[in-house]
Amino acid sequence: MSWNSFGRVLRFTTWGESHGPAIGAVVDGCPPGIALTEGDIQPWLDRRRPGTSRFTTQRREPDAVRILSGVFEGRTTGTPISLMIENVDQRSKDYSEVAKAYRPGHADYAYDAKYGFRDHRGGGRSSARETASRVAAGAVARLVIPQVRVRAWVEAIGGDAIDPAAFDPAEIDRNPFFCPDPMAARRWEVLVDTARKAGSSLGAVVACEATGVPAGWGAPLYAKLDAELAAACMGINAVKGVEIGDGFAAAALSGEQNADPMRPGTDAPEFLANHAGGIAGGIATGQPIRLRVAFKPTSSILTPVETITRDGAAAEIATRGRHDPCVGIRGVPVVEAMVALVLADQALLHRAQCG
Amino acid sequence: MSWNSFGRVLRFTTWGESHGPAIGAVVDGCPPGIALTEGDIQPWLDRRRPGTSRFTTQRREPDAVRILSGVFEGRTTGTPISLMIENVDQRSKDYSEVAKAYRPGHADYAYDAKYGFRDHRGGGRSSARETASRVAAGAVARLVIPQVRVRAWVEAIGGDAIDPAAFDPAEIDRNPFFCPDPMAARRWEVLVDTARKAGSSLGAVVACEATGVPAGWGAPLYAKLDAELAAACMGINAVKGVEIGDGFAAAALSGEQNADPMRPGTDAPEFLANHAGGIAGGIATGQPIRLRVAFKPTSSILTPVETITRDGAAAEIATRGRHDPCVGIRGVPVVEAMVALVLADQALLHRAQCG
Amino acid sequence: MSWNSFGRVLRFTTWGESHGPAIGAVVDGCPPGIALTEGDIQPWLDRRRPGTSRFTTQRREPDAVRILSGVFEGRTTGTPISLMIENVDQRSKDYSEVAKAYRPGHADYAYDAKYGFRDHRGGGRSSARETASRVAAGAVARLVIPQVRVRAWVEAIGGDAIDPAAFDPAEIDRNPFFCPDPMAARRWEVLVDTARKAGSSLGAVVACEATGVPAGWGAPLYAKLDAELAAACMGINAVKGVEIGDGFAAAALSGEQNADPMRPGTDAPEFLANHAGGIAGGIATGQPIRLRVAFKPTSSILTPVETITRDGAAAEIATRGRHDPCVGIRGVPVVEAMVALVLADQALLHRAQCG
Amino acid sequence: MSWNSFGRVLRFTTWGESHGPAIGAVVDGCPPGIALTEGDIQPWLDRRRPGTSRFTTQRREPDAVRILSGVFEGRTTGTPISLMIENVDQRSKDYSEVAKAYRPGHADYAYDAKYGFRDHRGGGRSSARETASRVAAGAVARLVIPQVRVRAWVEAIGGDAIDPAAFDPAEIDRNPFFCPDPMAARRWEVLVDTARKAGSSLGAVVACEATGVPAGWGAPLYAKLDAELAAACMGINAVKGVEIGDGFAAAALSGEQNADPMRPGTDAPEFLANHAGGIAGGIATGQPIRLRVAFKPTSSILTPVETITRDGAAAEIATRGRHDPCVGIRGVPVVEAMVALVLADQALLHRAQCG
Repeated sequence: MSWNSFGRVLRFTTWGESHGPAIGAVVDGCPPGIALTEGDIQPWLDRRRPGTSRFTTQRREPDAVRILSGVFEGRTTGTPISLMIENVDQRSKDYSEVAKAYRPGHADYAYDAKYGFRDHRGGGRSSARETASRVAAGAVARLVIPQVRVRAWVEAIGGDAIDPAAFDPAEIDRNPFFCPDPMAARRWEVLVDTARKAGSSLGAVVACEATGVPAGWGAPLYAKLDAELAAACMGINAVKGVEIGDGFAAAALSGEQNADPMRPGTDAPEFLANHAGGIAGGIATGQPIRLRVAFKPTSSILTPVETITRDGAAAEIATRGRHDPCVGIRGVPVVEAMVALVLADQALLHRAQCG
Repeated sequence: MSWNSFGRVLRFTTWGESHGPAIGAVVDGCPPGIALTEGDIQPWLDRRRPGTSRFTTQRREPDAVRILSGVFEGRTTGTPISLMIENVDQRSKDYSEVAKAYRPGHADYAYDAKYGFRDHRGGGRSSARETASRVAAGAVARLVIPQVRVRAWVEAIGGDAIDPAAFDPAEIDRNPFFCPDPMAARRWEVLVDTARKAGSSLGAVVACEATGVPAGWGAPLYAKLDAELAAACMGINAVKGVEIGDGFAAAALSGEQNADPMRPGTDAPEFLANHAGGIAGGIATGQPIRLRVAFKPTSSILTPVETITRDGAAAEIATRGRHDPCVGIRGVPVVEAMVALVLADQALLHRAQCG
Repeated sequence: MSWNSFGRVLRFTTWGESHGPAIGAVVDGCPPGIALTEGDIQPWLDRRRPGTSRFTTQRREPDAVRILSGVFEGRTTGTPISLMIENVDQRSKDYSEVAKAYRPGHADYAYDAKYGFRDHRGGGRSSARETASRVAAGAVARLVIPQVRVRAWVEAIGGDAIDPAAFDPAEIDRNPFFCPDPMAARRWEVLVDTARKAGSSLGAVVACEATGVPAGWGAPLYAKLDAELAAACMGINAVKGVEIGDGFAAAALSGEQNADPMRPGTDAPEFLANHAGGIAGGIATGQPIRLRVAFKPTSSILTPVETITRDGAAAEIATRGRHDPCVGIRGVPVVEAMVALVLADQALLHRAQCG
Repeated sequence: MSWNSFGRVLRFTTWGESHGPAIGAVVDGCPPGIALTEGDIQPWLDRRRPGTSRFTTQRREPDAVRILSGVFEGRTTGTPISLMIENVDQRSKDYSEVAKAYRPGHADYAYDAKYGFRDHRGGGRSSARETASRVAAGAVARLVIPQVRVRAWVEAIGGDAIDPAAFDPAEIDRNPFFCPDPMAARRWEVLVDTARKAGSSLGAVVACEATGVPAGWGAPLYAKLDAELAAACMGINAVKGVEIGDGFAAAALSGEQNADPMRPGTDAPEFLANHAGGIAGGIATGQPIRLRVAFKPTSSILTPVETITRDGAAAEIATRGRHDPCVGIRGVPVVEAMVALVLADQALLHRAQCG
């Protein structure tokens, strides 16, 4: 099956392939009366845009978004918001070899197994290019919940992690790695450059924090806030793991070590720890929501890898063309977008039932 | 919002609280003509049943399931299957203190923040007791996809992991820990006993493998197989992390290290590795599906923890009563059930679109 | 496919067969804090209950509802409300002939064609008995929107209509036909008695009005209020037509005749007519919602009808046993329930998007 | 709420306003491998296109559809199909008066009541222009179920009905009224011309038949085939009534008169009548599906009607501009499209559960 919609009441549907004429998203259920222009969306797309540094793919896409519906005189009308981004820099010739042999780690074989054939140009629908639609939709979601701030960054590349003590949010947008630790950013420059020149690639861990989420958002039991976030992030290209709060580290703790004690506070309880990542029983506690997302290294590498052709013959494939040496870097704005979309949906869901 | 249904075409809805008269699940969309009796469900419930060893809660529940609809002359009719499990061993007196003060790490505060009040008896709806309904529904799901085998086990407790070299599937059901490594099982006996006697608790990591999943199942882009599995598992009580395949370890690898090369095989391609955990582009590759789930330590501990009362006053709470010292152990059959439910749903979804 | 859930955010799922141990509904998404006991539901079930007069089936069912979850200390908790009604007066022997030959007009043949076999006892899942679950769920829905009053009645039986001038709402519950015109009620007594004694049956038209629905409810374009009402009512057993406002009569009018002019009013506009039945563009206008529903005559008749057996052989079937001579009569509380469920769902949906 | 998606597994989402840059639909869940080009869609759009005769609105729209995704080398890939139709002949000046005063019978007041403001240009989102998106999506749906033929026609205009004995399907596309009775078509020419010149409008009844639907499609109990068709048709602009089979006429019959007896047939049972319109228990019986849809007269008329302004002041409004004198005429391809979409969705749903 294909299932290209996400969300319960604030729903979005994306469409489009890497090398088709355009990609886009339809955002439905957005509250009316919100000021919205292309200018509110474009900056977020620009953060995800390829070709901005030598550490990302060299495909040059302006990623200019157009709003085709749902906005009148600068405000949302409550009707579906159609967002379209034209594809400009497709080069189909780069992908001729891919039509014949499956690139291991990519969706090539799986799509063929499922659908019988596939649009092989640039990965078609399975290309990370689709995530531009998510970022555009996420920009709308942010406006639905202006009280919430969603911010992600890269926490580790190829196993080299930031120093938590050096965390400086102001640094995140000052380097091409969304890295909050300037020392780590310098190390990563060498690391990623080396991988890039060798035609290799690296995995990464992206962390995300959402502040301003009020206690009560979350839809137990089968649309729990943490379950929705896990689905939203695990569905991003190349993601293989999601943690809420302490995640796997919590599995090695005792109950005493993992406790998040509470004290009376001024407006809300004061929490003395946040091992839980701001979610209990699938419902926000009012603390910052914290999660971590593991991106595998880009599967496109220059080293030839054993594979098979569409006809089942043995082959070797080395993926030339334009690729991100570390797809996790541009995953930062995508994680943010998905988290914003989940939170905005949960905000409306909460209002539906609890007023 | 509440959202107590899961699944796209094979859907189930659960209901019931820890201390109400009963809990249950309605499974809808099950194919007709499948042989089904209570005897097909009960063994799976018995694996999850409390009170079977000193390492789980001492609440004594027979967890006897009744099929109230959807089966005629021993076969499913294609209409909704209503499953009910009566609660027998509720002891509401145990929970009087909980009504007043919030147990940190539990859903108490979050439910109050969301709904204004809550059924505090035994955690009410947020109790792990609800997972019995999932296990019952999962037993039906298994019958929908008889070609698939879903098997989970505990991989680590309190940070003490099994030796992968000692992995013996036959051991899993021979000890009270679902532990595939007999040496580890012996160590955990001491570990969990110590925690239990101290009124403490421990986290755990559960691993799961599904074999027999054909290439092609999975619904890109927003019901990807891995995203559905992540949502299904992250929604289980006490779960804080989910990994597919190598998960977070993949984030520290290079593209070469993480490659899953392919060779021509007899019926299907032969894969030389399975870093991806059997899923590419959100679609099954035909390899075993592999995932890992992190359970935090049970939040109920005897050590007093700072907290607040419903009225916002400072308090301390020590959670007496009957609790699992390591909730991850009984998480094993629940993880299996959720994985089976996702796979059965994806099987039907795949058939819907791709015949 | 089976699809046994209805609603977008206030959702209910029903289960159960005519001759199984019980039937029931799970209502999910109900707001918390609403006072709810079995006593709030039972009176509505009693209106639909069989065996209360000689004009309905003689099956004797107490239709006593039990609330199994979702209510604590007399108030809804926001978690799923499980409602169960035990079947008491099944007589499976009555239906032995039905197992072999298809009753024309019933779902027998269609269920076999779909599922390969069926629970033939009393119609199994396709029995009108299932509508008791809807009435129970509808009673909950009424409490969600206390400002709304939903009231239905029978407008015609076997082509014999009430006199609109004689409409007296107080009469509706004073006769066994939910007839607002006492003269018509007397005529129908003869009419239905004659049909009943002859083993025949009659069709009916049920009208419904909902007052107190605020302007703005409705979810364009594919969950329009009128579309949801049409689906809700067309899905009731034996229903073959639904009209909103003037319905088919409007198709014979000119634009001038069909206009609903507006004037300034005190709190809301004053409408000078209501041809539209209170809905424009799929959204409530604040006027009374008006709809009409056509029930076909019960398909169970004593006159032998040509049919085929399960093996495809020619046969004749005369449906003995206990049946409603005019199923439309007991359709009145069912129409009310479905309308209440749609309106409560739309109320919550409206709040989700528009605050 | 807005809810702009329809369908369970074959789902489509539409977007766009009458006077925005474009309108469109995203069709998701379409099976892969189906030959599809713009040429398969355009003829159906041309049937609905305005300005083709003096009996429809004089707005001139080429309604040229573009496929933006989901098709590769002429075949569907199984990924979402994005369809876009540019708006060409908007004339916003025509609608200046509408911004101030509400047109009775239109969605103006209801949209303002719901969303606080609205895109008033040409009715914005509530314009019948949106139905072009449905027709485009419906063209795709037809290809999903090539064994099914869906055909609609106008059965009555302003109360003047066709002669059933004169029904000739070949006539339907030979006159501007989709009228299967040439004599009626001639009468309607006068009728509609008179209304048009007087600035008046007329209602209409559209009938639809789907042949080739196999016994078994339909998803009881809450996505019954008839309920889905009712929702699909009642959601079309200006529709106020839907009947399946004999509809309201069945409510005046006895059980004997309404029986659909069966006899053994060659491949399938032979039915001796089709009062039920090919659906029993919400499931197709294999007979032709038959339904009727009532369209109210266009609410836009030249005769001034009492109304109120946005500020609540008394006003009169006469709707100038370009309008269909009988909106039911162009409803024919829209009804066909919605019926095709429901049937294709049910076909896939049936396959999901029943193989």
